[in-house]
Amino acid sequence: MSKVRVAGFGVSLDGYSAGIEQSLENPLGKVGPEIFQWFFHTKTFRAMHGQAGGSVDVDESFASRAMENFGAFILGRNMFGPIRGPWLDDAWKGWWGANPPYHAPTFVLTHHARKPLVMEGGTTFYFATGGIHEALSRAKEAAGDKDVKIGGGVSTVRQYLRASLIDSLQFAFATVFLGQGEALFPGIDLPALGFSITERVTTPFATHVVLTKG
Amino acid sequence: MSKVRVAGFGVSLDGYSAGIEQSLENPLGKVGPEIFQWFFHTKTFRAMHGQAGGSVDVDESFASRAMENFGAFILGRNMFGPIRGPWLDDAWKGWWGANPPYHAPTFVLTHHARKPLVMEGGTTFYFATGGIHEALSRAKEAAGDKDVKIGGGVSTVRQYLRASLIDSLQFAFATVFLGQGEALFPGIDLPALGFSITERVTTPFATHVVLTKG
Repeated sequence: MSKVRVAGFGVSLDGYSAGIEQSLENPLGKVGPEIFQWFFHTKTFRAMHGQAGGSVDVDESFASRAMENFGAFILGRNMFGPIRGPWLDDAWKGWWGANPPYHAPTFVLTHHARKPLVMEGGTTFYFATGGIHEALSRAKEAAGDKDVKIGGGVSTVRQYLRASLIDSLQFAFATVFLGQGEALFPGIDLPALGFSITERVTTPFATHVVLTKG
Repeated sequence: MSKVRVAGFGVSLDGYSAGIEQSLENPLGKVGPEIFQWFFHTKTFRAMHGQAGGSVDVDESFASRAMENFGAFILGRNMFGPIRGPWLDDAWKGWWGANPPYHAPTFVLTHHARKPLVMEGGTTFYFATGGIHEALSRAKEAAGDKDVKIGGGVSTVRQYLRASLIDSLQFAFATVFLGQGEALFPGIDLPALGFSITERVTTPFATHVVLTKG
């Protein structure tokens, strides 16, 4: 059955986060290098950049699960780009170049309407102005039997968690302290939301933790 | 040289904390059992309860370091007891019974004066009404060449961190999500305060992380 999942979400030990898609072309400052160390050496990461090789290890198993079996994605607008307010033109097409890593319908939460944007490789960006519930409804319909990924950023993940709309969370806790950023957990009571830990593996790069609802 | 240290401080993956002294006789609800799993099986924990045996492993090495070489302790008032406001009498003598686990001068931060309280085993509770700087000054003088431990609770640790008065932090990150409690990290920028990770070891029970300033 189709699930709504957060996956490949990096978290520092002091609770600051970002999703792996943000590490591709997006200049995240120090966040990317520090919280995605577990990801860069994997086969999945290299394949996303058109490169062969890469590790086939525990980190890879979590990397591949973070990118596979998704029929649709939902992103917050700030994850899609740096522009705020109304879209002045169609020039901005995301951080990821002509062929984004989604390869599926991808719904961007925004207050400002814009025509769908068809990219190479199967990604179409739809601009969802009806709120998080409407965006999820459209994403589920687009995904069919596959899962819907809440790709980020932190604010979007927090909104879907508070609305109790997420089934599964796959985090990679990196042994770093960022000191500042967007905090994932304040006011988010995962046990009260019905989540419990169903997997935990530590590698030299991260502690991978999966939480499942119910 | 004498250091000011936090040690044996348990933290959940969603950032809620307590120090190991709180687990002794203090009914912490679910926090104790969940974030101190790494501690209960150790030789140090058993010795603190007058029992022989216990593990001599990586968890034990962090447990013993969390209790050794301290010449004085500082505790927040809520960690000392449940009474708020002025002391009505001298009946309350801490959570720990006649022989508390400190075995050294222990300064309790409070706004309300009270005579020192001499306990068995070398612990004397002093009630420090002059603020965190004065309490630390007294604790350093009492500790001599040994270290001063900021034992907790969370609010006390945060106050000393913000004032840039702590030299070393030894955390045990437990793979649990508490959902609520006292959050340790909001507004605390450890890199900006000069801390970097100097040790990291993962056991089946916790990821032990030491941060050192400077």
